[in-house]
Amino acid sequence: MAPFEPATKGSGQEEGTDLRPRFDAAGLITAIAQDGETGEILMLAHMNAEALRLTLETGKAHYYSRSRQQIWLKGETSGNVQLVQSVLVDCDQDAVLIKVTMSGDRVACHTGRVTCFYRRVQRHADGGYSLAMDWRE
Amino acid sequence: MAPFEPATKGSGQEEGTDLRPRFDAAGLITAIAQDGETGEILMLAHMNAEALRLTLETGKAHYYSRSRQQIWLKGETSGNVQLVQSVLVDCDQDAVLIKVTMSGDRVACHTGRVTCFYRRVQRHADGGYSLAMDWRE
Repeated sequence: MAPFEPATKGSGQEEGTDLRPRFDAAGLITAIAQDGETGEILMLAHMNAEALRLTLETGKAHYYSRSRQQIWLKGETSGNVQLVQSVLVDCDQDAVLIKVTMSGDRVACHTGRVTCFYRRVQRHADGGYSLAMDWRE
Repeated sequence: MAPFEPATKGSGQEEGTDLRPRFDAAGLITAIAQDGETGEILMLAHMNAEALRLTLETGKAHYYSRSRQQIWLKGETSGNVQLVQSVLVDCDQDAVLIKVTMSGDRVACHTGRVTCFYRRVQRHADGGYSLAMDWRE
């Protein structure tokens, strides 16, 4: 049984009260994880329908690994589970925003940092770019 | 001339100081726009190399429309330009986080709302879902 209603064309998708996730050709939707307390963006990942359903039903963020081609419970091995505060969809429902409380070490990135977004782009006078650490080690 | 260095395997991608955006098979990278003052997530969109370069060079967010297959300067018609405060990359550099100050009406969504994420998923006792407006109209 398909767990969600299919996406539609028109205003129902954007203004309606039906959850109709618009999965892409690979069956995935983009998910942004945000710390519900600090507002910090933690990571960007993907969910298939089953990962989204598990996230909504268990209250723990589940994602779909495109490289491993399987669903994973975030924090299953590290202990850094993301407890879901709320799930929001965007206008055309092809992205979800998960506001979470982190448990464990409160680390979202596999590199051991709180967030995956720890480097800031710098532009140089010669037109080149580099990255600067934007994170309190 | 390719404006960016190619993505690499290994730790250089995650720990290095080289900007090496990892564009997908369609030549796109995912971009999250966040209000630099409030921390609110405004929208999720995509950039190709040229849109990313224009964003970094002009300080105004440019995206790539997959439906129209062209680059657009956000706010070009609406006046709601997103002025870039900073651009961050995630660990494997396949996503960018753009912290912005909005000009004009301070509206990011084409529906006229501040953010595209204006509906929250509700789960009902019978296992069904619906969406509730999560936005101050």
